[in-house]
Amino acid sequence: MIKAAIFGASGYTGQELTRILSGHPEVKLVAVTSRRFAGKPVSEVFPSLKGLTHLKYQNVNPAEICNICDIVFLALPHGISMEIAPEFVRAGKKVIDLSADYRLRDIKTYENWYQKHSSVQFIKDAVYGIPELYRQKIKKTKLIANPGCYPTSIILGLAPALKKKILDVSTIIADSASGVSGAGREPLTGSLFCEVDGGFKAYKVGKHRHLPEIEQELNALAGKKFAISFTPHLLPVKRGILSTIYAKLKKDVSLEELHSLYCNFYAKEKFVRICPSGQYPNISSVCGSNYCDIGLAIDFRTKRVILMAAIDNLIKGAAGQAVQNMNIVCGFEEDAGLRTAPLYP
Amino acid sequence: MIKAAIFGASGYTGQELTRILSGHPEVKLVAVTSRRFAGKPVSEVFPSLKGLTHLKYQNVNPAEICNICDIVFLALPHGISMEIAPEFVRAGKKVIDLSADYRLRDIKTYENWYQKHSSVQFIKDAVYGIPELYRQKIKKTKLIANPGCYPTSIILGLAPALKKKILDVSTIIADSASGVSGAGREPLTGSLFCEVDGGFKAYKVGKHRHLPEIEQELNALAGKKFAISFTPHLLPVKRGILSTIYAKLKKDVSLEELHSLYCNFYAKEKFVRICPSGQYPNISSVCGSNYCDIGLAIDFRTKRVILMAAIDNLIKGAAGQAVQNMNIVCGFEEDAGLRTAPLYP
Amino acid sequence: MIKAAIFGASGYTGQELTRILSGHPEVKLVAVTSRRFAGKPVSEVFPSLKGLTHLKYQNVNPAEICNICDIVFLALPHGISMEIAPEFVRAGKKVIDLSADYRLRDIKTYENWYQKHSSVQFIKDAVYGIPELYRQKIKKTKLIANPGCYPTSIILGLAPALKKKILDVSTIIADSASGVSGAGREPLTGSLFCEVDGGFKAYKVGKHRHLPEIEQELNALAGKKFAISFTPHLLPVKRGILSTIYAKLKKDVSLEELHSLYCNFYAKEKFVRICPSGQYPNISSVCGSNYCDIGLAIDFRTKRVILMAAIDNLIKGAAGQAVQNMNIVCGFEEDAGLRTAPLYP
Amino acid sequence: MIKAAIFGASGYTGQELTRILSGHPEVKLVAVTSRRFAGKPVSEVFPSLKGLTHLKYQNVNPAEICNICDIVFLALPHGISMEIAPEFVRAGKKVIDLSADYRLRDIKTYENWYQKHSSVQFIKDAVYGIPELYRQKIKKTKLIANPGCYPTSIILGLAPALKKKILDVSTIIADSASGVSGAGREPLTGSLFCEVDGGFKAYKVGKHRHLPEIEQELNALAGKKFAISFTPHLLPVKRGILSTIYAKLKKDVSLEELHSLYCNFYAKEKFVRICPSGQYPNISSVCGSNYCDIGLAIDFRTKRVILMAAIDNLIKGAAGQAVQNMNIVCGFEEDAGLRTAPLYP
Repeated sequence: MIKAAIFGASGYTGQELTRILSGHPEVKLVAVTSRRFAGKPVSEVFPSLKGLTHLKYQNVNPAEICNICDIVFLALPHGISMEIAPEFVRAGKKVIDLSADYRLRDIKTYENWYQKHSSVQFIKDAVYGIPELYRQKIKKTKLIANPGCYPTSIILGLAPALKKKILDVSTIIADSASGVSGAGREPLTGSLFCEVDGGFKAYKVGKHRHLPEIEQELNALAGKKFAISFTPHLLPVKRGILSTIYAKLKKDVSLEELHSLYCNFYAKEKFVRICPSGQYPNISSVCGSNYCDIGLAIDFRTKRVILMAAIDNLIKGAAGQAVQNMNIVCGFEEDAGLRTAPLYP
Repeated sequence: MIKAAIFGASGYTGQELTRILSGHPEVKLVAVTSRRFAGKPVSEVFPSLKGLTHLKYQNVNPAEICNICDIVFLALPHGISMEIAPEFVRAGKKVIDLSADYRLRDIKTYENWYQKHSSVQFIKDAVYGIPELYRQKIKKTKLIANPGCYPTSIILGLAPALKKKILDVSTIIADSASGVSGAGREPLTGSLFCEVDGGFKAYKVGKHRHLPEIEQELNALAGKKFAISFTPHLLPVKRGILSTIYAKLKKDVSLEELHSLYCNFYAKEKFVRICPSGQYPNISSVCGSNYCDIGLAIDFRTKRVILMAAIDNLIKGAAGQAVQNMNIVCGFEEDAGLRTAPLYP
Repeated sequence: MIKAAIFGASGYTGQELTRILSGHPEVKLVAVTSRRFAGKPVSEVFPSLKGLTHLKYQNVNPAEICNICDIVFLALPHGISMEIAPEFVRAGKKVIDLSADYRLRDIKTYENWYQKHSSVQFIKDAVYGIPELYRQKIKKTKLIANPGCYPTSIILGLAPALKKKILDVSTIIADSASGVSGAGREPLTGSLFCEVDGGFKAYKVGKHRHLPEIEQELNALAGKKFAISFTPHLLPVKRGILSTIYAKLKKDVSLEELHSLYCNFYAKEKFVRICPSGQYPNISSVCGSNYCDIGLAIDFRTKRVILMAAIDNLIKGAAGQAVQNMNIVCGFEEDAGLRTAPLYP
Repeated sequence: MIKAAIFGASGYTGQELTRILSGHPEVKLVAVTSRRFAGKPVSEVFPSLKGLTHLKYQNVNPAEICNICDIVFLALPHGISMEIAPEFVRAGKKVIDLSADYRLRDIKTYENWYQKHSSVQFIKDAVYGIPELYRQKIKKTKLIANPGCYPTSIILGLAPALKKKILDVSTIIADSASGVSGAGREPLTGSLFCEVDGGFKAYKVGKHRHLPEIEQELNALAGKKFAISFTPHLLPVKRGILSTIYAKLKKDVSLEELHSLYCNFYAKEKFVRICPSGQYPNISSVCGSNYCDIGLAIDFRTKRVILMAAIDNLIKGAAGQAVQNMNIVCGFEEDAGLRTAPLYP
């Protein structure tokens, strides 16, 4: 059993990590931190976890945690992770950072979209934690930059087509919709039930901070520079992201060929499922699980592919992918602790 | 007071017409038909309408209705409207058909996407009932083809930009999401609460029957032929459509210019509201009303406009627009019976 | 046209008042106040109201408002209304207070459940604003204590049975469930979409502040002192309250007799609808309207009546009832501005 | 590994059994039946299960299934189970029947509330499958009558208080609310998203078929005959039941004593959690798990206890409890396959 700790464990992502790690066969969760709830049992803040963990939230220094754990998950806002991660890396611990702080390899891009970076030297050693693309690198790193939720869906949705170079990359548009848990557990007016239920709207059109991260990875896959349009929407659901992605085909491709391409690309992946032809993914078929479901269509009238990718934003889009990365970096079975079926209906 | 009847009044659109017409100051609703609920009071099928109408559903011939009404609304499936409308038109009554039967001016297109048409000769006299575009023609016709819900949002969203010819029309993509009432009140597995709540998915990708109708009108606005991509999604809400529309700009346009263009185009319209710059429409801000809210963005990195249009699919997307058309064709104030504010939250 | 102002207009109840008064044929809304949003147009805070009001929120003294209006609505927290109402009453204005400050006729009870009262002398002149029970008194007062949402449903549900003395009043239990808008628009963790959606729970069991108000009115109706059990629950809906009320019958009563009793009691009421025998009220059949729907059942095995009353908590449970009271006190038609049908589905 | 089959596997309960058994460490699921979907892969009907089971639905005779399995789950409507169960029992197989057919020990009561019974002789050997009450009997039976969803919540909520005889049993009222999955996957108008979302209503007041089952078990616990009032409500959620139960105390009991009574009664139970004093259960804290959360309150003003019990109706209220019963009857760890934490938020 390895010993794990979670920093920032009282948000939705931290709660989800707590939930998954409490049931993980190879992990002993030794500490969870929260400034706001310090001293309170986890099960008081999240009654759903009663009987599953006896931990209390602590407000402690990284140094104190460092001594007692082998791996640490940082479920902290960007800007704070960069202050804490270095201490753990230097101490030889494994770090899985769920913030954006180590995702962008270009420091200028990071500082344009976020803020001044205080531990730039660690960026080059961080690995962007999409196992389906970077499994070998993940095995060897100490610092995993766990991907954003929107990026996970868009990158997995586009990877096979980009690698195969069948798309006119200048035409890529990602139209995404996310459940409200993506906005976190902060009490914001915009996240109130009455503001969200029955509603649907776009937000941060063309300006969402996940954009540079998405483009970095898409450009790497395609082997060239290009920009995309990305429009996030707020869905009146708790969990789930669906990205519907449009691009012009560079050459004629049949739906069968496209389907084969995707099935082959992800043939050995436990957490990517390609929908049968003519079926499209539904977020309610992945929620509660670490799956990414991908659906494919071709609009022959306009020579566009339409790629749809669905994930649970808190699992494959955050905590589940973090645990998948932990499994890889620790040498466990890649789906250990992650075999829960989607909760449907 | 004119006398109105509704054919097919026990579906959601028929119910909505009943609701609106029951409160309309210029209209006496004299008959509502339903095969399934014949003999039952409307208020038994829809307890919300108790005290608002004393009508019972009837299963009657058009001929019987024709004698007692001045205007008839057909809230029937396509294929059935075409059998009933002619009798009313011939009798000099006004007909507002909410099915697709008279929307497509090209008969071949209709028959490709729907079925054999049995009253082709009436198509040429029918007017496509978007008041913001065809008000003068609507005033003079007897037969109004009330637009589909998705088309209403997409056409209103694109009209000013197409008329002004600022878009590369070959790049238009409409990514839309609709509430479940769009699927009607038939008891289908796919419309069950447990199948829809918490879910989000695309359906009929590139194949939805509203596509030819959308393209007919967009082509007319642009004055040339082109095809678009259109992807409908099913939203876990009862009412509302949001269409997020993408297109490349042909030339440089600032957001201020775009905003002015839209404000001017719709300056005299009572039911179109342009969001302030930087604000985007939310379906929950229009639901319960006949408004179409339009938001505008420009992604300067990719030279694309992103147009967002929100409507209540049962009101501006169906029954409300039908009543707006009635008001025009009957010479009433255009917003008579339609002044209800959106029900928010 | 009378001139009306709303204090505390940026919460959900204030918004609802703004919405209703903006469309009221006899009222000109002249001022709306909000500390938080002072200076902002109403339509920026609530885009649903764009085009319906051009007012901006102000942060002003009561004195300034007093000069320009004939009637004032106080949609303020308890404890604040009591500071503001007296100035208006003294100036001869009509005041409709939506807080609890003037609802309880017994000052000790008020101070036990709420706080110290600073304008006790006004309590005796205030009328508890349930028109169906106190219409004559409402006509003559200057100060209306608009009822709470839960109390409205429970009092209307029990009034005929209590007046007729058919119940063993010691056995009354009110089990109620409310939509989230009842908690207001404050950004509280417990009102977040993710905390509410998919959930259902009781809260403040036996301790809700509406309890003394409910008992005051039920005791008055029955003509004797007694206590009830009242359990509020939080429903994952935006609007609506359903109260399911249990009591033992003192004597044999048939369902037909019970039904007649209720139909007769409310025969002249425009806003109370009695469900046909065997039908029970659904909050979705009243939401968006000022109706209270009441359903009746008798469990003959246990000699209990089960009374069910459904309202829209923001309308009949707050803003709509306030406008109904205004209509009465100002001599307008009692349903002026309140004829909107429920928005179903 | 034992071999299990599910009859009627394409409803929501059957799907849930399939989901749980697919991940059960001691079970090999060998057959699932469905008339409607015969020939189709489970994963086509329920895409959420793709990759978790490769079974196809079959339309087969019990005899064919009998040969290949050790235990059979009957997720069939009442009236059909009674035709199928006997064959399996006679063949020495274990049967877990999720219908009502063997729940009522009094045949007249069964036939009054349901229909003619065709295999009466098996009723006396059937054990009512609430493990917390009948674990020893369950171990030894071949035929388990798996409890209804409402009864599970009400029986577990009342058991300690009834055993301890602190309640005036003539005053018991159970006010319950259930998610829509309780109505099954049949396409009924009343289960449509648009009919349910935003709504809340009582149904079958005093007449629900779970009533005799509830009373049978409560009477057994109390050791005497009595009737209760039971009102089910339909909640706009997919999963979850909350029962709020009222009863007069026969003698003075403090909240601490009540809390101790419940904690002790369920001290060794893995699936019953007693909320800390002052906290009440929320269905969203149990959904996705086999837990029953129980909350306690005393209304000292009226000498009533208010007991609240929350379960996931498809898990502890159906499939999960069935698997718990299987674990007991097969000698597995009682929580095998059931350790999944609630999915919150």
